[in-house]
Order: sequence, then structure tokens, then C-alpha cells
Amino acid sequence: MGELRRDPVKNRWVIIDPERPDREAALKVEAQPPPPLAGPCPLCPGNEAMTPPEIAALGEPSRQRNQPGWWVRVTPDLQPLCRIEGDFDRRPEGPFDVMNAVGAHEIVVESPEHHLTWAELPEQQLERVLRAYRLRSLDLRLDGRFRSLIVVKNHGDAASILQHPHSHVLAFPFVPHGIEEELRGCQEFYARKERCAFCDIMLHERVSRVRRVEETDHFVVLAPFASRFPFETWVLPLRHASDFATIDDGELVDLAGLMKRMMQMLGKVLGNQSCTIVLHTAPFDEPHTNDYHWHLEILPKTATVEGFGWGARLFVNPVTPEEAAALLRQAV
Amino acid sequence: MGELRRDPVKNRWVIIDPERPDREAALKVEAQPPPPLAGPCPLCPGNEAMTPPEIAALGEPSRQRNQPGWWVRVTPDLQPLCRIEGDFDRRPEGPFDVMNAVGAHEIVVESPEHHLTWAELPEQQLERVLRAYRLRSLDLRLDGRFRSLIVVKNHGDAASILQHPHSHVLAFPFVPHGIEEELRGCQEFYARKERCAFCDIMLHERVSRVRRVEETDHFVVLAPFASRFPFETWVLPLRHASDFATIDDGELVDLAGLMKRMMQMLGKVLGNQSCTIVLHTAPFDEPHTNDYHWHLEILPKTATVEGFGWGARLFVNPVTPEEAAALLRQAV
Repeated sequence: MGELRRDPVKNRWVIIDPERPDREAALKVEAQPPPPLAGPCPLCPGNEAMTPPEIAALGEPSRQRNQPGWWVRVTPDLQPLCRIEGDFDRRPEGPFDVMNAVGAHEIVVESPEHHLTWAELPEQQLERVLRAYRLRSLDLRLDGRFRSLIVVKNHGDAASILQHPHSHVLAFPFVPHGIEEELRGCQEFYARKERCAFCDIMLHERVSRVRRVEETDHFVVLAPFASRFPFETWVLPLRHASDFATIDDGELVDLAGLMKRMMQMLGKVLGNQSCTIVLHTAPFDEPHTNDYHWHLEILPKTATVEGFGWGARLFVNPVTPEEAAALLRQAV
Repeated sequence: MGELRRDPVKNRWVIIDPERPDREAALKVEAQPPPPLAGPCPLCPGNEAMTPPEIAALGEPSRQRNQPGWWVRVTPDLQPLCRIEGDFDRRPEGPFDVMNAVGAHEIVVESPEHHLTWAELPEQQLERVLRAYRLRSLDLRLDGRFRSLIVVKNHGDAASILQHPHSHVLAFPFVPHGIEEELRGCQEFYARKERCAFCDIMLHERVSRVRRVEETDHFVVLAPFASRFPFETWVLPLRHASDFATIDDGELVDLAGLMKRMMQMLGKVLGNQSCTIVLHTAPFDEPHTNDYHWHLEILPKTATVEGFGWGARLFVNPVTPEEAAALLRQAV
């Protein structure tokens, strides 16, 4: 019989049942062929004029802005979800609340090379990518209009028009619903226990080890107890911190190596590294210093989500996190 | 520029931007061919022995149980998400909560005919389907183990092994997260206003009419102000009631005709009726009599959800609800 497991932060029950008939599909990610590139890649070196002017870059000291020679380059997204200019114009519309979609939507071009994945990028290059996230987080909070920041990396997203390795940095005047839920859960947990919920989870999982995938000097990777998706993992810093931007250089180097290995493991186990990686970090204006713990969530694109998921947020996961962790550990 | 709109119940901001590049995909549903049927259909008349023994049925008075002659038949699901027998065995596991996946998972076989959709079923037949939902809701609440009930209909689900028209009735010992969120939002709204949030929304939308799709004697169909998905609609009873099972016979007949027309409209506008229909109704043990309002949510399967959706519950909808409502109205 399957189990109902409750996520201690979000208080969300998940059905975990390895006897589900869709289990086989969940153990393989279908490799989707990337769509053919129509014309030159706007993210490749030499094509800098095809993107909006760059916001930041790491590269050769002698390099000039918007010219080749960069290692990592940050520009506004070519099709931004929200615009950096303009006023919110917060207003009521009847009983509703509405404002203009003002926000930052930047992309981090992760390498000059067009075809490398995180599993293939040199560790030093991934370190630069993480450094760019930190840089942008520190800079975007200076814009008093923005309350929150998320970073999203779609790995192997056949739907994207851009095949060149890149990730999204978004800053919003609101807190995305998924993060807000987590913050509320952590706050309620702290009010009761005067401890960070994620610290408690880590403490337990590092001792029990059944859902621990890997541990480094500064991070631990867990398959969460109430995983919504097959092979869902969380990467948590061992040092309690609510704000990703407080990551130090040693932690950055450590995390770069760890993320590369994680993508290699997923590739080995699932035959494909297609996943979404999301940075969860505290909002700028509510630091949640004691009760929140920044982390990365890795959500592999395995089986499609059943109608129950969208309709009522009822998740059914046919792969137990214990099995997922064991399979990932074996793939090291 | 796009807009940020907040759902007044869930306090969730959604980006609505008709200039998104994925808009075209959102205006068409790809018709997925149903997988070939391997062997006889277990839901067709004559094959009653292929399902677990029936729980309830509407049919010819002379009919015998588990024999043909039924119009609508309810049986346990062939691959239930949870099992009706056994104990919960609620237990801690370290800092976590776990219990056995005990619950009811039934299917309502919606017609003896193998190939009809809701758009094609006679109204009288749809009325019987709704009657079966009411019947099951009234019966399942007698089992003190269950706290909540949802009904989910996957329309045109190529992933399903069953092509025969059917829907799912599920009863759980917990409240699904999406419903719980809504209940909490409604309760907060009521605490402030002493009015039902959905009644307020209906009042506004019935006057303004821009997001109103249709109205009958007993129901109104709206494209919600902060729609997460293109062509998302809500079907709300005009009479305030938190519990679907209080629907009377006149309302049932009215709703059957309305749902048939809704499916016809979606088919005309999107070229396909693929959607998930979910019944949201109050939990058995917390009737939320004043603050909650039962309704049906229709979520068409248009564009795939971007990574932002899963990663942080950040929804981006390229079709405004005003446009969706106008297109649906024209399709009548």
C-alpha cells in the first residue's frame, strides 16, 4: 500500500506509492530533440549585438563591454516576463488587485560554448555562474521596487528557443506563491519550535542517511521525505542562512562541484538531465533571518503530472525518495 | 506591458501578458490520438466482471447488479491511488508525519457508450453523472475516516489507459493542498468582510460582464480575473452553498446542460475539449458554511506549463480572461 507523507514546511500531503502503474515512465526521462536553430544563436560570442546591452559579465580583464572575451554574461531576457522600466501603477479593479508587470528578467549566459550542459561545464565555469547569481542578487535588491528574487534554470528544455546554456534571474515586486507558502510554513514552525525547519530536516536526514544523496564540506543533498516528483532533490547549505547572497567563496566553489556531480548523477540514472533548478531565497524586505533557510530545488522532468496535480495540488509520486536517493548514490 | 493580477482568494499573483511568445500555442490544444485499446474495454457493458464489484449504479429498474442495463455505474478504480481497506496507522517518522494511503478512489462510468465526450452525451446522461457525484458524496461522508472529497474529470486524457468516458471520485483522510489553500483564503476574507469571497466575485463579474462566459437560472461561468491557465473557467452556483451535495434536482438539470455547452464551446474555440474538470467542495468535517462556495474549475490542457510554474508557482498566462471569455461567448 502507498503512503501519505506530509511535508513539514508546507503541510502538504503527498501520495508516495511505488506500485503506481506509471512508475516505469517516471524512471526514464524522454530525451526531446532540441528544435532546429533558425539563424545564428544570439547568446554565442560574436553575436553580442543580438541581445539587449549587457548588465554584467565576468571575463578577460582586457575585454570590452558587449564584445567577446566573456566567460559568463548577464543581459536582459530577449522575451522578458516583466519589464524593468515603468511604474507599478498599483490599482484596484473592482474587488481585485492589479499592477503593471514591472520586474527584472535577466538571463545568465553560462558559457561561451553553445552545447555544454551543467554536467559538462568545467567546475570553474559553474562557479562563475553561481557568482553571477550572487552579484545580481546583491545588485537587484538595491532597487527598492523589488521584494524578491528567484533563479530558474531549465535544463534540457526543448520548448526554449535558446539552446545555448543559460539561466533566468527574476526580481519581482511580490513574492512568488511557492516561496510565500514556504516562508509561512517556516515561520509557523519557528513560532512553535524556535528552530529552523530546514535545519531540523537536515539534522535528521544526515543521521538517518536513507534520503541523503551526497554531502560535501558545506552542503547536503536530500531527496525530500514528501517528494512531489520522482527524483526531486534539495541542495541545502549546512550553515544556516536565509539569504543566498551570503554564500562565501569557499561555499561557492563547493556548490559548483556539487551541482556538476548532481547533474551527472541524474543523467546516469534517468538517461537525461532534463530538470528545473530553482533557487529559493528569502525576500529582500523580509529577511526571515532565523526561520528561513535558502536552498536549491532540483525537479527532474520525468513523468507528466497527472490531472490531480493541477486540479487540486494533489501529488502522486511513484518513486520513493529512499529509492531515488539510493539510485543517485550508486551513480556517483 | 503585461499585468500582475492577484487572485483575491489565494492571494496569488499571476502574470497575464497577451504579448508572450508562447501565445499561439496557448490558443490551440493539440489533439492527442488515444492509445490503441489492448483487449476489450473494462468499462463497456457486458464486461462488468472486468471491474471490481460495483458500488452504485443508475439504470433500468429490472437490472441486476454487475450486469448490463446501467446508465451510469460507479466502481472502485482499477488502479486506485489509495485503498479503502485498512487502518491509517498515523505515525511519526523522525520529524515527519506519515500514514497509510487509505481513502476511496472510485470511478464513475459516465455512459454505456464507449466513445462519447461530455459535449456529445445527452443532457439527461450528464445529469445522471452529476447525480452519481452527489450520491457518492452523501455516502462517503458516512465513513468517519474521510475528511474531504474531490471529483476529477480528465477530458481527452491520452495518458489514461481508459478511453471510455469516466471520472474520478476521491475521498481522503486529509484536505488536498489546493483546496486547503482556498479554504484558508476564504476564511481570511470572511474574517475581514463577513461575506463570501466567491459571492463578491460573482456579484462584480455579473455586473461588469467582461469575464462572464455564460449565465443560467442557477449558475454563472466566469473566466477568473487572475486565471493561471489560458481559457481557465469557473462554474459557480448563484445560490451560496459550501457543499456540492446540497445541489437540488433543478440545479442538477441546469448544470448538466451548462457543462455540455461549456465543453462544446471549448471544443469550438480550442479545436479540442481536452481539459481537467475539478469539483471544489467543503470538507466533511469543516463545513465552512458561510465562508466557502463550492464550484467547478475547468482547466484546459493548452500550452505546457513553463518551468517557473512548478519551480515557484509562478504562473504566466498569455491569454487574458477577458479575451478568453469573449471567444467562448462567441462560440455559443
